Amino acid sequence: MVHASAYGRLEDIFARITLIEQSVGMLQWDTAAVMPPGGAVARGEQLAALKSVAHGMLTDADVGPMLDAAAGEALDPWQRANLVEMRRDWLHAAAVPARLVEDLSRASTACESLWRRARAEDDFSRVSAALAEVLALTREIAQIKSQALGVAPYDALLDQYEPGGRMAAIDAMFDDLGRFLPGFLAEVLRRQPSAPPPPVGPFPVDLQRQLGLEMMATLGFDFAHGRLDVSTHPFCGGIPDDVRITTRYDEGDFMTGLMGILHETGHALYEMGLPVAWRTQPVGRARGMSLHESQSLLMEMQVCRSPEFFVFAAPRIARFFDSAGELVWNAEALRAATVRVQPGFIRVDADEVTYPAHIILRYRLERALIAGELEVAGLPDAWNDGMVELLGIRPPNDRLGCLQDLHWYDGAFGYFPTYTLGAMTAAQLFEAARQAMPGVLGSVSRGDFSPLLGWLRTHVHGLGSSLTAGDLLVAATGRPLDSAAFKTHLQQRYLA
Amino acid sequence: MVHASAYGRLEDIFARITLIEQSVGMLQWDTAAVMPPGGAVARGEQLAALKSVAHGMLTDADVGPMLDAAAGEALDPWQRANLVEMRRDWLHAAAVPARLVEDLSRASTACESLWRRARAEDDFSRVSAALAEVLALTREIAQIKSQALGVAPYDALLDQYEPGGRMAAIDAMFDDLGRFLPGFLAEVLRRQPSAPPPPVGPFPVDLQRQLGLEMMATLGFDFAHGRLDVSTHPFCGGIPDDVRITTRYDEGDFMTGLMGILHETGHALYEMGLPVAWRTQPVGRARGMSLHESQSLLMEMQVCRSPEFFVFAAPRIARFFDSAGELVWNAEALRAATVRVQPGFIRVDADEVTYPAHIILRYRLERALIAGELEVAGLPDAWNDGMVELLGIRPPNDRLGCLQDLHWYDGAFGYFPTYTLGAMTAAQLFEAARQAMPGVLGSVSRGDFSPLLGWLRTHVHGLGSSLTAGDLLVAATGRPLDSAAFKTHLQQRYLA
Repeated sequence: MVHASAYGRLEDIFARITLIEQSVGMLQWDTAAVMPPGGAVARGEQLAALKSVAHGMLTDADVGPMLDAAAGEALDPWQRANLVEMRRDWLHAAAVPARLVEDLSRASTACESLWRRARAEDDFSRVSAALAEVLALTREIAQIKSQALGVAPYDALLDQYEPGGRMAAIDAMFDDLGRFLPGFLAEVLRRQPSAPPPPVGPFPVDLQRQLGLEMMATLGFDFAHGRLDVSTHPFCGGIPDDVRITTRYDEGDFMTGLMGILHETGHALYEMGLPVAWRTQPVGRARGMSLHESQSLLMEMQVCRSPEFFVFAAPRIARFFDSAGELVWNAEALRAATVRVQPGFIRVDADEVTYPAHIILRYRLERALIAGELEVAGLPDAWNDGMVELLGIRPPNDRLGCLQDLHWYDGAFGYFPTYTLGAMTAAQLFEAARQAMPGVLGSVSRGDFSPLLGWLRTHVHGLGSSLTAGDLLVAATGRPLDSAAFKTHLQQRYLA
Repeated sequence: MVHASAYGRLEDIFARITLIEQSVGMLQWDTAAVMPPGGAVARGEQLAALKSVAHGMLTDADVGPMLDAAAGEALDPWQRANLVEMRRDWLHAAAVPARLVEDLSRASTACESLWRRARAEDDFSRVSAALAEVLALTREIAQIKSQALGVAPYDALLDQYEPGGRMAAIDAMFDDLGRFLPGFLAEVLRRQPSAPPPPVGPFPVDLQRQLGLEMMATLGFDFAHGRLDVSTHPFCGGIPDDVRITTRYDEGDFMTGLMGILHETGHALYEMGLPVAWRTQPVGRARGMSLHESQSLLMEMQVCRSPEFFVFAAPRIARFFDSAGELVWNAEALRAATVRVQPGFIRVDADEVTYPAHIILRYRLERALIAGELEVAGLPDAWNDGMVELLGIRPPNDRLGCLQDLHWYDGAFGYFPTYTLGAMTAAQLFEAARQAMPGVLGSVSRGDFSPLLGWLRTHVHGLGSSLTAGDLLVAATGRPLDSAAFKTHLQQRYLA
């Protein structure tokens, strides 16, 4: 059936694009979770072919005029919001010449492999020229998208991950947090009691997995529409109807694997709760990276490191690992072990208090790199100086400094701030949820997550991308995003 | 880079089509092996979208003229063979109007679901009208392809699964086998000793899996390029660089699961051995269904039910399931248990001797259905009469007769003969391998499959689709396919 309206034809085109992107998503899960190593080359070619087909559909010469025509048609609010997202996708894809995209893809691949050697050998000079090449191409793309979108170059990159995100708002919040954190951290460290002895393993992987599955079900994960598997780096992938989360297990420490599962379950619940009627349309997608991260952090940090959660969880954990009752699986001891604060050099190992410092540093550095205010050669020193300013520690080498993770070397600029925007969003949303439902943590202490999930379904998940992240937050919490709820949360958890 | 030659441009197009078909293959593995049930609807849409994209590329108006132009270009033998396969793909795809393909797809889906009810209720009348609709559309497609390919309508259907396969050759071989089998079967049953007591379980699934993995490695399966998983119906899927086989386990019977693994490993070794340089081109594919089935049956039936195999396997099996040495894991007893003959109504449960009777019956019936010599209403009686003629038993109901499996109801006509063509091909290839390497089964008895695998790599796997199945068999065995080697094999195994 061919639609008479331009909007109807666009829905057909975007449904097809979405189905190809869903196929890409499933194959990416396969790559990380089950693919044997010898499948990698063919998989890379499959993914490139599928992405190229989807990109070709999106940048077809007919799409631009169709978007213009659809804007003049009678549309309901969801259709109107869908059209906005269609145009955003199209602008990002059509603005940049295919040659430039391919050049960046090639340069990033080359830089990524040099980064692996540079990190292994702790030698930034091995990768600096390649990173400069990636940066130059990224700046060229940022410049082009800047004109197409009518925003600053860095904002154009940010918009890929965080639609509508803008430096001006982030600067204000991050400057505020950046002033707050050093003094707060010092006070937390001053008052923090010495670490209690950790529960002693081994904790069999199979039991850890069973515990994880039980907790996922408790949080509301629907196993008719998803799976739990293992991968080197935990992630949430797949599609809303078939959400695939992963974790990793350490026989000596069940808590890291469990918290990984709870975190990814937060992501998964968002995907599972997206509006069913809009599964194959842009407006049916999750609303950007910071809101996605807010859903994982709300579950992991706000809820599942609370005293109430451990009232529920401690006996269940004991049932798996302490069936003889020989060890002490005290709720308070377990909780205390999950809220230890310790400044360190590595972002992915950071706790809730020091994590934002890592992010603020990277945000400032990548802003400066894109603006041309910082050159690649100056990156190691700028990094180390920033660590001193924000965390009071100086990395002894670049391996523990600017070589520590892949971002940037693989061409990902504009992504970092979403982690801390997510943490702030989580705090602000959970504050609103508790105000609306004062008993919500009481329910959690009885293993009942349904009031919380119901609130999130209504105020976040079910809205898809029908509102901007900013409007969604105002509707859910009564005000735009700020750092107040996050600071309050930290103070109550760590200094109360 | 755009190629100057039409052939070069065709290689680019077919590489892209192949990569999309590979993506389809991986997603089909996912569907059968790991997908949660709630993912089915979206998966169906993903697969339909990808197939539609690939079909669109293949039937693009430029492809026909490019094939004509390439035929006049200077090509080496592999390129020439590749062009033949490209044209076959194109002929099959371009001949049939898209509307007809969609009608058949819809009718098959409807018929399949009616078949499930009809089988459950043992009521052929529930599905007969739907089957008649599927048959009518299939006949229409067969008629159109018949003209495009210049062959009979049934041959045009057969050609989809067995390129170059023709009724005339099959008739001669199946008539010969059909005359041979009833008397042979009676003699086997007359002489067959009573069944020995089977090994007593339970056989833990995890140990069965470990045994299977060890056997796969012994046969030559490369785990850098493949996996073993579980599914309801064992199959071999994935792609040559990443072959995914499945089996199913029964705690009371390890032999069925093990034989399933050995069978699928035969398929997998064919895929893994396809010519590396032609991975994304039609000529790099396996050469049709009968040759594919020959590779699984050569491993499972010819080799892994031989006395020599059990000399090697019995102690290994005992190590997994009889570590205390309390049971009798005698090589001869294990072997004897795998070559029991028992006529029955259900094809998929049939042994090596009676299986061809099921296939010959179905071949004759589907030929007659396509030719219009048999109507759907007459199918139950024709089926039951044929069972009496070929196996000497009459199904007491249609559930054990023409309703027993999905083929036909899902629109698959022309596929059945490849099972028995595969069994005959396996026997003829293995006869040639033993003539070339008299010690090949001696090596198997020591767990060394490398001489056999080397011979198959040279004479079958590495050739891809560069030769027709007929020419490949002449090159490998010195003569076209016939039933002699298969009959000799049966006589030596069951009457010697």
